[in-house]
Amino acid sequence: MTADLDNPVNLKGWRIAIVGCGAVGAYYGARLARLGRDVHFLARADYWHVREYGWVVNSHVDGQWIVDGDQVYRRAEDIGPVDLVIIGLKATANYVLPEVLPPLLHERTRILTLQNGLGNEEFLATFFGAERILGGLCFVCNNRTGPGRIEHLAEGMIQLGEFGRPPGPVARAIARDWEESRVPCKVVESLRMARWRKLVWNVPFNGLAIAAGGITTDLIVGSAELREAAAGLMEEIISLAAAEGHFLPEGLVEDQITRTAAMAAYRPSSLIDFQNGVAVELEAIWQAPLRVARELGVPTPRLQMLTGVLEQLVASG
Amino acid sequence: MTADLDNPVNLKGWRIAIVGCGAVGAYYGARLARLGRDVHFLARADYWHVREYGWVVNSHVDGQWIVDGDQVYRRAEDIGPVDLVIIGLKATANYVLPEVLPPLLHERTRILTLQNGLGNEEFLATFFGAERILGGLCFVCNNRTGPGRIEHLAEGMIQLGEFGRPPGPVARAIARDWEESRVPCKVVESLRMARWRKLVWNVPFNGLAIAAGGITTDLIVGSAELREAAAGLMEEIISLAAAEGHFLPEGLVEDQITRTAAMAAYRPSSLIDFQNGVAVELEAIWQAPLRVARELGVPTPRLQMLTGVLEQLVASG
Repeated sequence: MTADLDNPVNLKGWRIAIVGCGAVGAYYGARLARLGRDVHFLARADYWHVREYGWVVNSHVDGQWIVDGDQVYRRAEDIGPVDLVIIGLKATANYVLPEVLPPLLHERTRILTLQNGLGNEEFLATFFGAERILGGLCFVCNNRTGPGRIEHLAEGMIQLGEFGRPPGPVARAIARDWEESRVPCKVVESLRMARWRKLVWNVPFNGLAIAAGGITTDLIVGSAELREAAAGLMEEIISLAAAEGHFLPEGLVEDQITRTAAMAAYRPSSLIDFQNGVAVELEAIWQAPLRVARELGVPTPRLQMLTGVLEQLVASG
Repeated sequence: MTADLDNPVNLKGWRIAIVGCGAVGAYYGARLARLGRDVHFLARADYWHVREYGWVVNSHVDGQWIVDGDQVYRRAEDIGPVDLVIIGLKATANYVLPEVLPPLLHERTRILTLQNGLGNEEFLATFFGAERILGGLCFVCNNRTGPGRIEHLAEGMIQLGEFGRPPGPVARAIARDWEESRVPCKVVESLRMARWRKLVWNVPFNGLAIAAGGITTDLIVGSAELREAAAGLMEEIISLAAAEGHFLPEGLVEDQITRTAAMAAYRPSSLIDFQNGVAVELEAIWQAPLRVARELGVPTPRLQMLTGVLEQLVASG
């Protein structure tokens, strides 16, 4: 069967490769594999284990399942050209992509990045051409708890869009398949706007959690000064989005603070990375927005200072 | 001999008490004692040692000397009323003063605080009356290295003023005596302005050194982002001073950055306190200026965020 690569209904017949099989890549790939899609996993650390035992996904939402290890690979060359590459790698490892991706690409291969923050689509577009790039924002709570083992705790929604253009048939087909595999997936008109909106939360909460000594979100909203600082950082991100022509909804700051205050104590992902000695996504979450601020001449004093503090904390471990 | 308490030439014949005999109080008191002035030291931790061995001051500038332990006391009642109280206590211990000072005071006793930051004169004025309050800013590099032992490494200048009024004969007499005891002492027209000026350095460098993970000044001026954050904090302090009618000199920010960059790696005093588990002067250095900002409606986003971060870091130790 020859897949329709331009006007697909779903991903039936598409060859799919997952690059970066941490909690995000393996989880979303395993969802498509469970649906019967032709998913090839490029794994490093977990290769031997998964080859033998498969991926074990334990979802607290809809049970446990195993994806056979037949289609796990150590080298992109062994997978060969695919129709869709899904990138679950951390943005801090982007430098490997110009070398890793080429064997996976044919002329019309789509590349979907599920990475955090700003700049990932731009990075991929520079090397591989903008027209094939898509992006997704993951709102998921999951962990890799051991070799080949993914614990899915809650949530899982993806906001999916195309890079620099409105969503077309490919974005909609991917969304349809994820929906069918029990991943809520929302196609967004503007990927950039969705990214700014997510940063409205990530910039203050991921950042202040690290800067204030490794604290959970309840302590941020529970401190008069830190809550005000978080709100101020949100305003700065909103003003950056606006300077690019993306107008986020009124009341967003209030809303985010209220929702966060209603949550249980939460350790933001960047804090977990920081405390585990894993590279923090400085560039994608703080440095790239700060660069936008400089380019557009938008004052962002809090973002500027927070970025400086985080750079130092990350550098000194 | 009866001292002239209103138009003194110097402090000859004055009874003087030092409250708070850490590095600052003991050092400046020992300078006056060496000159032959009648100095009484209120000491806690060092009492027994100093009683026996005296204060040992080792100045890398002008040699070692010992101040006899005869005039060291454990209780203010044992000193009784004096003509001048000099406060060397850390501002974080101010709460003890309403109880400690009364036995030392007669109607015309002057109180000189050598403490850091904003609010100390105001605090004393509330309890003991504004007309008797003076303040001094110490630019000194010294340490208490053991019981009764003060190491004077460098500098030592005091900027001296009267609270809420121009300097008069008392301020000038105190300055004269310190000058004579080899403490450079400059009488300032506006104590408040001098305090703002010192905060221009202390707010960013003491604060960022702690917030960025315990770093020395060279790393602050050596990081593009932290240097810019420091400059931004300085601008905020300068704008607060201006809102109060104190116009700090043009070019101050540039000048402070350049001087700091020319210094060797330096661990600001608040960082030393923080790392030693000693109370950090949050109120005097950050919270009091932030309160001024709120009262006067001056935007200080960096000071606000830094204060929130420091509060949290200090609270969690």
